[in-house]
Amino acid sequence: MSETKENAPWVTFRPEIKVLDCTVRDGGLINNHLFEDDFVKAVYDTAIESGIDYMELGYKASKTQFARKEHGDWKFCDEDSMRRVVGDNDTKLKLTAMADAGKTDYKTDILPAEQSVLDCIRVATYAHQIPTAVEMIKDAHDKGYETCCNIMAISTVADPEIDKALEILAETPVETIVVVDSYGSLYHEQIRALVKKYVTMANATGKEVGIHTHNNMQLAFANTIEAIIQGANRIDATMLGLGRGAGNCPMELLLGFLKNPKFDLRPVFKLLQDHLMPMRRTKEWGALIPYVVTGLLNQHPRAAMRVRTTEEKNQFLEFYDACTTEA
Amino acid sequence: MSETKENAPWVTFRPEIKVLDCTVRDGGLINNHLFEDDFVKAVYDTAIESGIDYMELGYKASKTQFARKEHGDWKFCDEDSMRRVVGDNDTKLKLTAMADAGKTDYKTDILPAEQSVLDCIRVATYAHQIPTAVEMIKDAHDKGYETCCNIMAISTVADPEIDKALEILAETPVETIVVVDSYGSLYHEQIRALVKKYVTMANATGKEVGIHTHNNMQLAFANTIEAIIQGANRIDATMLGLGRGAGNCPMELLLGFLKNPKFDLRPVFKLLQDHLMPMRRTKEWGALIPYVVTGLLNQHPRAAMRVRTTEEKNQFLEFYDACTTEA
Repeated sequence: MSETKENAPWVTFRPEIKVLDCTVRDGGLINNHLFEDDFVKAVYDTAIESGIDYMELGYKASKTQFARKEHGDWKFCDEDSMRRVVGDNDTKLKLTAMADAGKTDYKTDILPAEQSVLDCIRVATYAHQIPTAVEMIKDAHDKGYETCCNIMAISTVADPEIDKALEILAETPVETIVVVDSYGSLYHEQIRALVKKYVTMANATGKEVGIHTHNNMQLAFANTIEAIIQGANRIDATMLGLGRGAGNCPMELLLGFLKNPKFDLRPVFKLLQDHLMPMRRTKEWGALIPYVVTGLLNQHPRAAMRVRTTEEKNQFLEFYDACTTEA
Repeated sequence: MSETKENAPWVTFRPEIKVLDCTVRDGGLINNHLFEDDFVKAVYDTAIESGIDYMELGYKASKTQFARKEHGDWKFCDEDSMRRVVGDNDTKLKLTAMADAGKTDYKTDILPAEQSVLDCIRVATYAHQIPTAVEMIKDAHDKGYETCCNIMAISTVADPEIDKALEILAETPVETIVVVDSYGSLYHEQIRALVKKYVTMANATGKEVGIHTHNNMQLAFANTIEAIIQGANRIDATMLGLGRGAGNCPMELLLGFLKNPKFDLRPVFKLLQDHLMPMRRTKEWGALIPYVVTGLLNQHPRAAMRVRTTEEKNQFLEFYDACTTEA
């Protein structure tokens, strides 16, 4: 959107924008997806009532790689688990699951679309796994799903590599390619450059661009807005920003920003008070200082997650020194 | 900064940028400025060690309007109070105090600069008080201070009124005019438009533009970045974002973003762990949902501050309904 052409564009809305709730999928990374059904059902009902377009129920993780008993049902999204909560999902809400490249037995575990309550498969991949992701996209597409590709940790990928990945994905049937700031380390000028690059490819091939941010530097929402301004039409968010480490773009802020009358904030506030605030009593997420540090340094948050489980969790200076001096 | 002219501008730095710490002044609004001297001293020492340019010690509030015994020394910034902590301030750090239009006996309480440890007086004003602010600016300037004008609650002021205020301030000796998003309700496109407007005036008159944000929608840091991109060179922040309601732009994020080697994050992390985290145990601030609601609605946060003191503090839907339906 050009500021010279549009006057106060934030007052209106772009009908093409679709919102995806990934509370259960991304949020499940803080509790091994051990959510009770009533929580998943509450998010599902809220997504429907508030006009959200997609809900991601979890991962399609490999049962040979991930122990069934250490993880909740939403790590695997078996058909019977999902239907226990959503029935046949006879609603406008589309359902997605994420399949991680190299961590899913997609050939067997992803059923033909007509046998599944899922509408869309989102393939998550690091840049070096693009060929695997391409096979997964084709598999899901051939099975009848809408498909999406999330290239993770994009802040660590060199520009020529991104260009090549986009060039390869352009040749696939994937409908949406998502800019993913896994480390929460990008400023909005960087988001702008990335989204512009993705949109250029997308415009040429009839695809859409998505955005998925993390909140290490309290920029998840702002970077999401910037991506929207630059033309991203598929927007990820989670309720109260629930998510691993610093968490994600908060749904309540996103829906407050989007002016499409189809969205309703009221069911979201109800969910936050009834389900997310109680969860806050035992689970921690948000832009705590160790996550700020890894975000600033463009590092994976795992060191920050680790320190938050120790007695030294608030020894910020020691943590910063460790992150900036270790080999 | 034009993205077509500059490649990766965030890698470099603009030496003109100066950072102002207003932890004690703005943070004091959550405790009536009842800080212990050792806290103020710790912030002062940290500001010096981390290369911060200005520190705001508090308000110059009228003692006839504000009861001395209900407020801490930093509400009034008497010379002896300040010197108890900073001595003669024989450092590079410049010291400021804020004087609210209509709430200060500036003629008597602001001493001639040569008798004060303060270097700068920041006049805070609502748009309708500009003539009072102009008199205060002239008074402080004539007494030998650097001066600054913070036009508060700018998100509620109509454009022609802002234009007129800037036109009037352009004629004064004020060195800096600050864009103040008191309600934390502006998106970065709006910040961009406002800062551009201020910068146009400032460039024409040799003044500088400042930015002061609040974090209701988790946009304080992002909007500060946007203001910097658009040419603001005087940047307000507070340690751990301490401040009334949702708080302010966090200093630790700001210094992490600014690449000028004169800034050092390490003393800031030490202050956070030793002083701000302990304060968090008894004081509340941050982008809690009631502050999100007032931010979204461009309302003063007072209703949100009130509800946070009640049993209904997490009844978000009820609060949202009250804010959207009351007359």
